[in-house]
Order: sequence, then C-alpha cells, then structure tokens
Amino acid sequence: MEIQERVEALRSLMSEKGIDIYIVPSADYHQSEYVGEYFKAREFITGFTGSAGTAVITKEEAGLWTDGRYFIQAAGQLAGTPVKLRKMGQPDVPTIEEYLKKTLPEEGILGFDGRVISVSEGQRYEKLAKEKQGTVRYQEDLIDVVWKDRPEISGKPAFALGLEYAGESAADKLKRIRKEMEQCGADAHVLTTLDDICWTLNIRGDDIDYSPLVLSYAWITMDSVELYIDENKLDEPLKKTLAADGVRLHPYNSIYEDIKGLKADTALLLDKTKLNYALYKDIPESVGKINKQNPEILFKAIKNEVETANIRKAQIKDSAAHVRFMKWLKENVGKTRITEMSASDKLDEFRKEMGNFIRSSFAPISAFGAHAAMAHYSASPETDAELMEGSFLLTDTGAGFYEGSTDITRTYALGEVPQKLKDDFTLVAVSNLSLASARFLKGATGLNLDYAARKPFWDRNMDFNHGTGHGVGYLLNIHEGPAGFRWKYRAGETNELEKGMVLTDEPGIYIEGSHGIRLENELLVCEGEKNEYGQFMYFDTITLIPFDLDAVNPEMMTVEEKRLLNEYHAKVYETLAPYLSEEEKEWLKKYTREI
Amino acid sequence: MEIQERVEALRSLMSEKGIDIYIVPSADYHQSEYVGEYFKAREFITGFTGSAGTAVITKEEAGLWTDGRYFIQAAGQLAGTPVKLRKMGQPDVPTIEEYLKKTLPEEGILGFDGRVISVSEGQRYEKLAKEKQGTVRYQEDLIDVVWKDRPEISGKPAFALGLEYAGESAADKLKRIRKEMEQCGADAHVLTTLDDICWTLNIRGDDIDYSPLVLSYAWITMDSVELYIDENKLDEPLKKTLAADGVRLHPYNSIYEDIKGLKADTALLLDKTKLNYALYKDIPESVGKINKQNPEILFKAIKNEVETANIRKAQIKDSAAHVRFMKWLKENVGKTRITEMSASDKLDEFRKEMGNFIRSSFAPISAFGAHAAMAHYSASPETDAELMEGSFLLTDTGAGFYEGSTDITRTYALGEVPQKLKDDFTLVAVSNLSLASARFLKGATGLNLDYAARKPFWDRNMDFNHGTGHGVGYLLNIHEGPAGFRWKYRAGETNELEKGMVLTDEPGIYIEGSHGIRLENELLVCEGEKNEYGQFMYFDTITLIPFDLDAVNPEMMTVEEKRLLNEYHAKVYETLAPYLSEEEKEWLKKYTREI
Repeated sequence: MEIQERVEALRSLMSEKGIDIYIVPSADYHQSEYVGEYFKAREFITGFTGSAGTAVITKEEAGLWTDGRYFIQAAGQLAGTPVKLRKMGQPDVPTIEEYLKKTLPEEGILGFDGRVISVSEGQRYEKLAKEKQGTVRYQEDLIDVVWKDRPEISGKPAFALGLEYAGESAADKLKRIRKEMEQCGADAHVLTTLDDICWTLNIRGDDIDYSPLVLSYAWITMDSVELYIDENKLDEPLKKTLAADGVRLHPYNSIYEDIKGLKADTALLLDKTKLNYALYKDIPESVGKINKQNPEILFKAIKNEVETANIRKAQIKDSAAHVRFMKWLKENVGKTRITEMSASDKLDEFRKEMGNFIRSSFAPISAFGAHAAMAHYSASPETDAELMEGSFLLTDTGAGFYEGSTDITRTYALGEVPQKLKDDFTLVAVSNLSLASARFLKGATGLNLDYAARKPFWDRNMDFNHGTGHGVGYLLNIHEGPAGFRWKYRAGETNELEKGMVLTDEPGIYIEGSHGIRLENELLVCEGEKNEYGQFMYFDTITLIPFDLDAVNPEMMTVEEKRLLNEYHAKVYETLAPYLSEEEKEWLKKYTREI
Repeated sequence: MEIQERVEALRSLMSEKGIDIYIVPSADYHQSEYVGEYFKAREFITGFTGSAGTAVITKEEAGLWTDGRYFIQAAGQLAGTPVKLRKMGQPDVPTIEEYLKKTLPEEGILGFDGRVISVSEGQRYEKLAKEKQGTVRYQEDLIDVVWKDRPEISGKPAFALGLEYAGESAADKLKRIRKEMEQCGADAHVLTTLDDICWTLNIRGDDIDYSPLVLSYAWITMDSVELYIDENKLDEPLKKTLAADGVRLHPYNSIYEDIKGLKADTALLLDKTKLNYALYKDIPESVGKINKQNPEILFKAIKNEVETANIRKAQIKDSAAHVRFMKWLKENVGKTRITEMSASDKLDEFRKEMGNFIRSSFAPISAFGAHAAMAHYSASPETDAELMEGSFLLTDTGAGFYEGSTDITRTYALGEVPQKLKDDFTLVAVSNLSLASARFLKGATGLNLDYAARKPFWDRNMDFNHGTGHGVGYLLNIHEGPAGFRWKYRAGETNELEKGMVLTDEPGIYIEGSHGIRLENELLVCEGEKNEYGQFMYFDTITLIPFDLDAVNPEMMTVEEKRLLNEYHAKVYETLAPYLSEEEKEWLKKYTREI
C-alpha cells in the first residue's frame, strides 16, 4: 500500500469517527525514543524512517514535523507522498500546537492513541481543543485498523544483568527509590519508562532494535513491585530473582484495568512528561498525584563505581576495535572494494572479537562523502556507496557490551582529501577537544559549558544544528537524560553535571552535497580539587581513538589546541598499546604522533 | 539607639501584636534595588548598609541574609550587634524560607509590611504560614513605630528627559505597551517599578540616592495613564507634557484605595515578581489577573538608536575622564597625599568637566589594598585609607550624564606591585577580554556565554563569587534586567541577548586581607553576519580605558589573548585621542602600547 492510500484510508476512518485531525507520533506506550516494529505507526503513515518526528493528518493536509538532524533525510523519504515536511525550529514553520490551533475547526475533534502520548502532551491537546469548544478522542488506535500487516508486538526473552555489571542490587535500588518516595510523601510510584524499569530490576531484553529493553510497566509500593510484562519473556531463575525482590508479575496490558482500582488515599508519584496519557486518565481522580521527575532518572545517570569501571573497559574494547578498523580502512581503501555497509560490518567484526559483545547499541551510521552531510543518514542497499579516495567516511556506531554501551563517531580521510575538508575537520577536532578539556565548578550544567564546543564555530560565523552531547545509558537508552550539552534550553537535559555521569561530546560540520564530519567521544564526569571556591569538576575522555591526522591542519590550531590534541593522542597510545599487536602499535604510534 | 535596643523595641511590639516572626527586607514600595532614606528599614534594624539583604527577627533570634558581595562588609557591620550573619548560598546556611519553616511555631503569625514585599514573595510566605496552620500579617509597618527619627519620604523635583536623549516619545512607548497589552488580552496594566514608569513617561527625578527615579505608581489603560505621584514634584511644563500624553495625576498613596474600585471585567496585566503584595491584595478578586513580565522591561533594555549614540558619547566622556584620572594618579601617588575618598572625588572632578553631568550613577567604590577584597566596600571617613605604592587602587564608579549612565571599574597599580598581584590582574584582564570577544548566535543568553569569562578562572581552580555582568539602565537603575551574564540561573536575567542591549563585563579576584581586582567595561550587543546558520551577534566594547599595563604579565598570556588586549588598547587610543591634550595623548600612547 502506498503512503497516499494509507493516508486516504486513515482519513476515511477519521471521517467515519468524526475526527478532524489525527496525530501520530513516533512513540510506543512508554515514551521510548526508539520503538519496536509494532509501534512504527508514524513510519507506516508517512514513510519517514527517522527516530524523531510526528505526523499530523487533517482532512486536507498531511504534515511531518521533524528536527534539524533529519531535514535532508525526511525531504528525500517524503518526496512523492502527500506528506509535507515541516522543519521544526525554522522561521515561519509553525509548531505542531500552533498548527493545530490554526487548523482545528470550532467544536472540532482531535484524535490520537492516548497510549503513545505523554500526559503533558495530552493535556496540552485537551486545552487546545477546549479553546475551540472541541474535545480530544484518545481511546482508539486508528492506525491499527488501517495497518493490515502490522507486525506482532515483540515477545523476545529477557535476561538478568549480574551484579558484576550492574554494581547495585535491585533491592538496594528499590531502597533508594522508596526513600525518595517517602521524601515527597508518596506511597506508590508508577513507572512506564522501560529504561527506568530495567535499571531498577537489573533486567535487560530485546524488544526494541538495538536497545536492550523489555516492554513492561511497573508500579512500586513501599513493600512490593507490581510488574506488568509478558511472563513468557522470563525464565525460571529470573522469575525467582524477581520474586525475591518482592516483584509480582501481571500480564503486560492489565495495568490499565488494575490502576483503576488504586485506593483513594494513595499518594502516587508519577512523571507527567513520561507517563502515557491513557494510563493517566485511568487513574482514579481521588488518587493524590505527585508530579515529579522519576527518581530513577538521576539515579541511573550517575554511574556507580562498578559501572564506571566496566564502561572504561567497554570503551577500551571499542577503541581498540576502531583502531584496527582505521588501520584496515587506510590500508585497503582504493585497493579492495569497500562500501558504507561493508565498512560498517567490518567495524562490527572487530568489535565482536573483543568479547562480551551483545549487539550494536543503535542503528549504525556509515556515510561516505555527501551522505555524511545528512546527520543521521542510514545506508541501505539502494544507497550503499563505494568508498573512494579524496573524501571522508563518517561512522557513528556503538556497541552494547556487558560492560556497557558505547556511542562513538569518527571521520576518516580516505587518501588525500582537499584542504577545505582538512580545515573543517580541524575545526571539529578543536571544538571536541575544547569541551573535553573544560573544568568547572559543581553546579554547572551543559547550558553553561556548551559554549566551549561552539566557540570555534561561532567565532567563524558557523554552527552545527544539533546538541553537542547527551548522556549514555548502561545497556539502556543510548540517549539518556537528565544532563546533556546544548546551548538552547531543553527540558530534562539541564541537570547539573555530577560525578559518574557519562556524556558524549560530538560537534560536527555538514555541508550539503559535499561532506559531513562529526567526532564523538564519551566523557566521564569526575571530581577535581575542592577548595574555598567549591568543588571543581573535569571530564575524563574515555573514548580513545585517534582524530585522523591525515585530515588535521596544524596551521589552523593555536599552541594550546595542539597541546590538547597531542595530550589526547599520547593517552590513546598509552592506554591502547597493551591491547595491540606490534604491527598495530607501530601503526598507532604514527597516527598519534605529536604535531 | 543601639541596634540591640531597636531589635528589643521591635520584639516588644511584635509580642504586643502577637507576631512571632517579622521580616524586614531592603525594599521600598516599588521593589527598587536601592532605596531612599525613608525606606532603609533593614539598615535601621540591623546596621548593615549594603544594598542587598533581608532581616528576619524572631523572639529569640535576629538574622541578616545577604549574598557573597557583602559577606565581609556585613560581618564587620554586624559585629557587636545581636544580628547574626546568614551567608546566602553557603553550605549549611538555610535559605530564609527554610529558616522560617523551621522557626515559625504551629499556628504562628508571620509579619511584614506588605508594601515592601513582592506578590510572589508574599504568596510564598502565605503558603508557608498556612502549612503551620498559621497566617501572615502584612498591613502594618512595625518599623515605622519603632523608628522615631525616621527621615521624610523624598519630595525632590522631577524633570523631563528630552527626545534628544530618550529617542522615543512617551506616546510612542505607550502605543507599544498597549499593543503588548492587547496581545495578552489585557485592558489595564498596573506598573509600580519606578524605572518602568520613568522610562515610559520620559521623566526622571531624584528620590533615591544616585538613581534618578521618581516615586510613583501608574496604571495604564487603553486610553489613559493614571499616575500616582506627589504633584509638587512636577513643574507646569512637565504637567502639560504629561497631560498631552493622557496622563492623569493622583496623590502618591491613593492607588491602594483606587485599585479597589477596578471593574470586575477588567483584565489586568501585572508582574507578580515586581508588584507589591499589599497592592495586589487590594485588587478585587473578580478582576482577571494576567501575570506576565512587564513589557517595559524588555523594551527599555533594548536601547534605541538615539540612546545608543548617546551612550557611546557618555562612555567616551567617562573614558577620557578616567584616562586623565589614571595619569594624575600614576604621576602623584607617593608624592602627594591621596586617599580613597580624595581619589574618588578627583575622578568625579574630571567627569564633571566633561559637561552634561547630572550626578554619580551609584555610590562610588574607591578601595585601596585589602579594602578592595570587599567586593562592595564603601570608603567612609573612618576607613578612608591613604594610597601607598606597592598595591592596587580599585575604583568602581559611574556617572549619570544626560547621555546615559555609566558603570566602570578599573584597578590601578600604584608604583611597582608584587608579581602575584600582576598575575591576578592579568587573569582578570584575560577573563574580561574573553567575554567581550565572544561571538554567538541570536538566541544565546548570558547563561551560555558566562563560561567565556569563567574559563580562565575555572581552568586554574579559581572563581569569583558574583555574576559576570548586568544590564545598565539609561538614567534609570544601574542594574537592569532582563539579561545578564552569570552561570547560575537567576530569574529575570536570562533573556536572550538582543541588539541594543548594554551590559557590563566585570570579572574580579578578591583575596581577603590582601587585594581585590575587578575590571568592568560596558558592552553593546550588536548584530553581525546573517547566514544559513542564523543571525550572528557580537559585543562592541564601549568603555575605552587602558587595562593598566604596569600590572600585566604578558608571559601568562597566549598569543590570542595578547592580540585581544592589543586590539582593545589600539581602539582606546584611536577613539580617545581626539579628546585629549598632546601631553595626555603622549601618556596614553605609552599605556596602550602593544605588548
């Protein structure tokens, strides 16, 4: 069925139900950033495969809102469909809410599946509809009716993450959560975010491509955990472990009925930005609702010592794999046929050799030349370009090891590249190193420090159209709050930087039709000196792979910037050498030489 | 009457009225930062003369909360009194609200003069009292009863600020304000902040030391302005001008009665962070309240072209005066007796010679040696130190010219100073120049850019315990919102930086018992290139006075930092030379030489 037909089928269903506008976001019932095949309703109705985007279908128009990362990709995928691309944040492009305000008729009905919309979102839609004397209709999933060959919901098995990886037992985590509940006067806490549930119970699964999460809901009281999950996912030992921690099992979907039975005097801790709207509407009105960020969010972002030690190991493994890949790439490009996809597979091979590898931590990006100008380009057999000398290969890939998830981007010069490309590469390298070398007082946030990465760009009247970095989950979500690096305020990403947080540092340059460069390391937040001014903090760069010296223009760099690069390269060599063969060491020596 | 007796007198009054805790902030009825003599109730009850601080008196304790700028000064002034210093922001020091929560007894009564507390503050106190089944008592000014020789409320004359200085007529300003009112659905707008009123009506006065403001309230409708002011302050021409703009005059205090008569269907625009609590309580409950930042706040922060051209002139005048002062100081220190206060007077003399001088724009700081470690030290006949070679003189002073207000800090080496002092001075200079040279995309705020000034400090595990800069009013408040440079979020100071804003850039170092350094320039926000990335912005440094090269250590500076200093000094010389004598030019040439 073509997109056109799908949109038409949805419209006729809308008109049957009296719905004027139908919203289809990119979400599952858990506000996950990436979703399982079953939940790709927005992709079904628009054809756009990017991870972020919302479709809005009216009787006359169909629009897709997405952000700067996806403008080029979305424009390509929407071409020839009736769906219009709405570039978020661009001047003259209305936000979804502005568009709805304009488009929803008086007394109109705004429809969406309430399970794939957060409470905050749903309440904004409610308000908006009310202003037009209209209403929302959230109980039906219209896409489900239109989508004849919809995939099954995932039923893959879950597994326990041992204490040697998690570093803290579920019992201890529950103790900390219950203390937080107590402090805000709650005696129950509903959790629907998969990473929060998996982190709390030390379980992992395979229900979303790449993200090792388990579809589930949980509801924590002072003495029990009610876990809503397909029981077939759990083997007997795991069931026993869970039972020992006071976890009681219920069918996945029965939480909607069960929550209706909450006692009137319950004080329920919930996070309106995370909980789905339909579930919220099922909570009895008499229940006291304490709206607050889930305590698990900050808990899991601050990695404990076992996790930190593991993450360092994972980064060394992945760095060694990258060095082998880089050597192989440099030695073979132009000699053997290598494509974007085969290069990516090769990198994964090197990773797997390192052991304890579960799977990639997100959809790999392997982009040659102009493809790399699309910040989230994903190679497919149709687009899979052969690598040629004279341009860049950009790989943004990650591994899920038992020792943690990685998210690493490198850009490699294939043969000799033009001066302009070297200058751009050098700028990105300087930006990356500037942020990584920032020292700061405890209390600072990514809003304060983002300038360290932007300065080299802004000084040249340039910019990159995405955040500079995000938190990274431990075998959970690859993009993890509540801290991040960006200069524009975004809710849920402005927590102060705390010891044990792991964040990416990934500036880039994207020149449409020509090339794209991004260099992404992970940084571990560490405590430095404490003195009369307060507690100082710094970053330890835990990703250790050369910034390709074939693409560096030392003449553009200040003495200080060269020092930063040389120090980084010295650390790369020193740390990785023990894991490499003599030949590899020799090669790495050259690519980490002082400039 | 000693502080001890005053506190006792207040306590016996409190006990008579059944009040458990009484709060005395540093405020007038208009939430002014600096207040007239009549309003210095907190100074009366504690003896602390700083501009910021709040006293809280209980039956057993008396506390003064103030911020980092005043820790040293307050400790001195509170010594020997029963008032305990509470250092805001320090670990283990409760906030006022935490303290009240702990201290207010069950069913307790919390008292304050509702006219000197903002709505937001008052409502927080209400809530806090309610949590203890208590209540607030806000209708009485107990200090007025205790303060027998309280000064009269100021009755000084007002004057009109001509269009050649204001650049926009009151009629045009009212048009813009009414458009904003319309956009948020308001048909009335109550204004109590003096700078907003003075800016709107192009009037100035002399009711607060240094700040050329007029005590008044206003209430703007779609076709009139009700101005509450002591009519004796206005001469006939000014009355006529005001009448022509639809302004009707009422006695200063009668707004409290008049506002009770607001019609039930009025939609009143007000700013809860600015309006006083007592006035708010007098607004009929039936009136629709639209709580929003006063539109005048952003309007007046964005200086128009006439104002900008004037401000540049004011800065050149004040810079020339500073250069003459610096030359005089360098040539006379150690030869003639100069004290902190006589130096300050000398600087004012040079300023007055420049013409169109109204008065100083704030209480001058002239601090020698260790005195300068107190960020807001104010010399008095008792402390007035003689300047000696071997240390620094810090002057933080400003002028109110008709062409605008200035706020400038310089630190001068007197004779040869120790290496440590030079190194510290160089660090402050580098910090100042780094922020001033920042380029950024439109949308950035001071939260994003503050790091430019902090980086040189944070890289060395150092910091300064105050914001890096604030907006500057045009013959209004010397500290003006809604933008500023600081790394910690503070409400009302995080507006994006817009073309035409004028802000200070004033990092510093304070070494208790030894020395203090601050270098403060004013920056004008300008638009740079607009390209595919957006609108770029930059700062034009409009204060043009050398950073004392006798205190600069070039060996500490990078090539880039030296370039910034040399470029600044070249601009200083080029701009000021036309205003100087041959001898002065010769001298300035030396003090702006390339390093």
